[in-house]
Amino acid sequence: MSGAPVDRAAATAAHEELPQFGFRTTDHDGSARRGWFKTPHGVVETPAFMPVGTHATIKGLSVQEVGATGAQMVLSNAYHLYLRPGDKAVRALGGLHAFSRWKGPMLTDSGGFQVFSLSKHRTVREQGIEFRSHLDGSKHDYTPEAVMRIERNLGADVIMQLDELIEGKSEFAASERAMERSLRWLARCQEEFERLEREGREPLGPIELPLGAPVLHVDLEAEAVSPPQALFPIVQGGIHPELRRNSVRGILQTGHWHGIAIGGLSVGEAKPDMYATIDVCDPELPRDKPRYLMGVGFPDDLVESVRRGVDLFDCVVPTRMGRHGTAFTPDGTVQIKRADHRFDKRPLVEECDCPTCTHYDRAYLRHLFKAEEMLGLRLLSLHNVHHLVGLMRIARTQLAAGTFSGWADAYLARYRAGGRRAAKASRST
Amino acid sequence: MSGAPVDRAAATAAHEELPQFGFRTTDHDGSARRGWFKTPHGVVETPAFMPVGTHATIKGLSVQEVGATGAQMVLSNAYHLYLRPGDKAVRALGGLHAFSRWKGPMLTDSGGFQVFSLSKHRTVREQGIEFRSHLDGSKHDYTPEAVMRIERNLGADVIMQLDELIEGKSEFAASERAMERSLRWLARCQEEFERLEREGREPLGPIELPLGAPVLHVDLEAEAVSPPQALFPIVQGGIHPELRRNSVRGILQTGHWHGIAIGGLSVGEAKPDMYATIDVCDPELPRDKPRYLMGVGFPDDLVESVRRGVDLFDCVVPTRMGRHGTAFTPDGTVQIKRADHRFDKRPLVEECDCPTCTHYDRAYLRHLFKAEEMLGLRLLSLHNVHHLVGLMRIARTQLAAGTFSGWADAYLARYRAGGRRAAKASRST
Repeated sequence: MSGAPVDRAAATAAHEELPQFGFRTTDHDGSARRGWFKTPHGVVETPAFMPVGTHATIKGLSVQEVGATGAQMVLSNAYHLYLRPGDKAVRALGGLHAFSRWKGPMLTDSGGFQVFSLSKHRTVREQGIEFRSHLDGSKHDYTPEAVMRIERNLGADVIMQLDELIEGKSEFAASERAMERSLRWLARCQEEFERLEREGREPLGPIELPLGAPVLHVDLEAEAVSPPQALFPIVQGGIHPELRRNSVRGILQTGHWHGIAIGGLSVGEAKPDMYATIDVCDPELPRDKPRYLMGVGFPDDLVESVRRGVDLFDCVVPTRMGRHGTAFTPDGTVQIKRADHRFDKRPLVEECDCPTCTHYDRAYLRHLFKAEEMLGLRLLSLHNVHHLVGLMRIARTQLAAGTFSGWADAYLARYRAGGRRAAKASRST
Repeated sequence: MSGAPVDRAAATAAHEELPQFGFRTTDHDGSARRGWFKTPHGVVETPAFMPVGTHATIKGLSVQEVGATGAQMVLSNAYHLYLRPGDKAVRALGGLHAFSRWKGPMLTDSGGFQVFSLSKHRTVREQGIEFRSHLDGSKHDYTPEAVMRIERNLGADVIMQLDELIEGKSEFAASERAMERSLRWLARCQEEFERLEREGREPLGPIELPLGAPVLHVDLEAEAVSPPQALFPIVQGGIHPELRRNSVRGILQTGHWHGIAIGGLSVGEAKPDMYATIDVCDPELPRDKPRYLMGVGFPDDLVESVRRGVDLFDCVVPTRMGRHGTAFTPDGTVQIKRADHRFDKRPLVEECDCPTCTHYDRAYLRHLFKAEEMLGLRLLSLHNVHHLVGLMRIARTQLAAGTFSGWADAYLARYRAGGRRAAKASRST
C-alpha cells in the first residue's frame, strides 16, 4: 500500500488556528470529505481508522509500531480500564497518555457495549446499568455520571457518552426505547461532564502501596483539574430511519458537540441495512463536525462509509482477525493457515510496505501459525492495522486529487471479486 | 546496560583472513578469553549469548528486534523443525536463513534433549532413538545418520551431534554408558556428515502443492550441494570428572573440530557441581577452539562460565521467564506481577537501553501481565534477551580492558545480593 503525501504544513496551520478541538474539511466528493480533526494531543487527518487498544495496548503491538503504521489516533476502553487497573490508578500514573506511552490523540469508549456483552449479570434501568464484573464477579453501578467520572480520570481527548445497546435487528419499539434512553443518558453525561470541568475531578484518595514499594509522587492539586476533553454523543435507533433521524435531532437540540458518533451498527444487521442507515444519518448530521462510525472495520465497509460522509472509524477486527490467521489484502482476505501457503514465498501483499510484508513470506507466516508462535499473531495484526490505516490514507489522497469516487468503485470491485474467488476456492477444497 | 565498543575493523580482518570456520582469541584473563568465531554467515564476537528460536523464531520477537539487541548468532531446533514444517520443507524454501530471515550465523541443536523430554514414547537403543511425535503420535527413527540428514537440510552454520541425554544427577555407571554411546554416535554423525558433504544431500523429492497454490521454483541441482557447515561434538559424562575427561579425550581422538560443546549441564544438578564440571573440562579442551556450554542462560551462570573459559551460550530462559513475568536485572530478578509494581514508574532497569526500558515503566508492564496482554510477554522477553546479550558484550569489554576478573566479582556480588533481598521480601509478604 503506497504512502499518500501528508500535507504537514496544512496540518500545522490547522493546529495553530483552531481552538483545542476543531474540524475542517478541505476536499469533497459527494458526501465524502477529507479534513482535519484537531485535539489537544494533535491533529488527525480524516478519514482515519483508529486502532483499538482495549486494555491500553493495541494487542501485540508496541506504540512505536502502531505509530509507524501511520495511525494518528487510538482508542481504549473505559469498561476494561475501570475494572483493571482502575481508572484512578491510571489517573495517578499520569493518565492514559502517560500510562500507555501513546503521545497522540486518544479516545475512550464508554463501555456500553462491553457491559452488554461481557459482564456476568447486568440489569439495565433508567438510573444506569448494574453489572457483575466478568473478571471477579464484583458488583458495579455503571451510571452516566459514573462513566463520566471514569473517562475524566482516564483522560483521553475524546470520551463517549454511555448509551444503551440493543441487538442489531431489534424491532421498532425496542429500538425507540433504547434510543430515547440514550438521549436522556446523554443529557446526564453532559451535565456531569461539565460539572467535572468546573469543579475539578473527584479527589484521588490515598494510594495504598505495599511495604518497600517505591513512593508515587502525585501533585494532587494540579491533577484534580480536568484535562481538556470532548464528549461525543452517539446516534442510536437501530435500522429504523425515523428513529435515526429523531436521534440526530435530539442530539443536536441538547448542545454544542465537537463530533458525533453513529453507534449500534455492525452488530448483526445486514450490510445493506448498515449502509442505508448511514445514508439516513448523512443529511441529518452537521457537515462541519467529524462523524465517527463505531465498531466498523472491514475494508469494504470503510470505503462504503467514507463515501457516505464518515470521518472516523475504530474496530478490533484487524487485530482479532490477525490473531486468528486472517489477513486483509486488496483482493479480499487471506487465511494464512491454508495448505496453499505451505511453499508460498510471496508476502501477504506484494505492494505492501508494512514490516510483515517487507520481511516475511506466507510460508513462514503459515509456519508460525501452525507452530502456535506469538510472532505470527503479532505480524498479521500489524499488517492488518497497517492495511486499514493505509486504506484511509489512500482515500484521503484520492479525495485531495478529486478521484475518490472512481477509486472507491474500483477498490470495492477488486476486493469483492477476491472475496468471491476465495469463497469458491474454499468450497472446492 | 551500556554498549561496548565493537571492533569492526578487527572483525572484518578476521573474516577475511580465516577460512569458512575459524576461531581466534585476542584477550585473556585466567581461563576467560575474548575472541572471534568465524562462520559462513559472519563473525561472532565471543563470549556471546545465542538467543533460542526453537521453531525458527525467538518467541515473540522479530529478527530485527533480536538483531538490535546485539545478538550475533541464534539457535534453532532440529527436532521441532523436523516435525513441523519438516526439514525438507525448510530446505525447499531456501534453508533456515532464508526461511527465518536471520542473516547471521545460526546453530541447530540436534534435538537429543527434546526427544528425551517431549516425545510421547521413546526407546533408546544403540541404533538410535525411536519415538512418537508429541504433536500427532507419529513414529520416527532418530538415528545419528538421520539427524545429520535433517541438520544438513536445515542448513545452519553449526550443527550438533546426536547425543544421549541422562538425568543431571545420574550415577557413574549410567553416566558412563551414555557418554560412551554419545562418542559412538559422534563417529556415526561424523561419517554421515562427511558423506553428505562429498555426495550431496538426499534428493528433495516431489513437492506436492494444493491446486491453485503458487508454484515453488527450486534449482534441484544447486540445492543438493551441502552448504558449508561445522559439526560440533558434545562433551558428556554427568558430574563425574573422570567421565568428562574421558569424553573430551575421546572427542579429540576422533577428528578435527571447529568447536566443542559441553552438554548435560543445567539439567537438575547443583550449581557448584556445574561449575566444578566446567573446571574439569577447561584444561582438557583445546584453547584454540570455541567452547559452547549448552542450555545455560542465567546471568550468574554466564559470568561464572566465562571465567572458566566458555565462549558460547544458549538458553530458552530469557524468553521463557519473560513470558512468565520475570525480568533480569543487575540486582537479580524482578517479578513484574507483584503488587509492589502497581504504581512503580521506574523502568525494569534504570541504566538499560533496551526498547522495553526506554519506553515503558513497571506499572504499565505489570498491567499488561495482569490483563494477560501479549505485549507484556514480548516486552519482558525482549528485555531479557537484551540483558544477556548485553552482559556478554560487557564481559568482552572488560576482557579487552584487562579488568574482567574484578568486574566479574563485583557483578556476581551485586546480582546475588539482589537475589537474597528478593527472596527475603518474598517471604515477608
